[in-house]
Amino acid sequence: MSTKTWAFEDLGEGLVIDLGTKTVLAREIIEFASEFDAQPFHLDEEAGKASILDGLSASGWHTCSMFMRMLCDALLLDSTSQGAPGIDYAKWKKPVLAGDVLGGKLTILSSRPSRSKPGLGFVSWRAELANQKGEPVFELVNTCMFLTREAAL
Amino acid sequence: MSTKTWAFEDLGEGLVIDLGTKTVLAREIIEFASEFDAQPFHLDEEAGKASILDGLSASGWHTCSMFMRMLCDALLLDSTSQGAPGIDYAKWKKPVLAGDVLGGKLTILSSRPSRSKPGLGFVSWRAELANQKGEPVFELVNTCMFLTREAAL
Repeated sequence: MSTKTWAFEDLGEGLVIDLGTKTVLAREIIEFASEFDAQPFHLDEEAGKASILDGLSASGWHTCSMFMRMLCDALLLDSTSQGAPGIDYAKWKKPVLAGDVLGGKLTILSSRPSRSKPGLGFVSWRAELANQKGEPVFELVNTCMFLTREAAL
Repeated sequence: MSTKTWAFEDLGEGLVIDLGTKTVLAREIIEFASEFDAQPFHLDEEAGKASILDGLSASGWHTCSMFMRMLCDALLLDSTSQGAPGIDYAKWKKPVLAGDVLGGKLTILSSRPSRSKPGLGFVSWRAELANQKGEPVFELVNTCMFLTREAAL
């Protein structure tokens, strides 16, 4: 039997998992953007203020990646996760700015065993992040694969 | 007039933009995963080979971020881009492994002026990345906002 806390059978419809919090640092925003998304409003406070984002704002892909870290810490690293085939959708609802404190939750939408691979199951969820003012900044729906407790032996 | 090469009016339906190539390094896979997605198959060659991913494979979010860098270099950094509200969908079609050389293209699906903000327009596209064997590894559809050449003055 797997010694992980979370296997496929633990992730049923309606379950809500707290994603903890993440403080977004200016240094991290600039570091990520320098490598992957060097648009001016992700690199420079003044350029951010001059843009519709209204401040030094994280790349949307950085927000996705920070969410992934929160998801790893809250669930995946202590689970039988086998990865995911993609993203159903993601929404960058408001800019994520330097100094923001993100918090959020994961809600399991559905859960079904694989028809072709015994011991594997698909879990769909909606993730929601909000900033310290309670404003929603990010929403995502996708499906992840997990082994059953027995298959993870 | 904007001195950027690409403004809203240059991005019409049917246009195809080459995204260049990107060689995926093991060091980069591990670095990204250590920060954002520390699942064993993204950190270690042996754990990757033991998983369904069959090798040291990039986090799906790393693939998204590498795509974003390719898109920045091919288009966004020399454009009137104003960011994007989200992702319609993304598919991680095959594992992206250490040593892979990714290449791909962007196809403009539609383009329309904003009804509420003069000088702004929405451009929707499909991005496709394949590896050096020609196998599709990534597909994404989303919509980005661009200023018209005149509005970007």
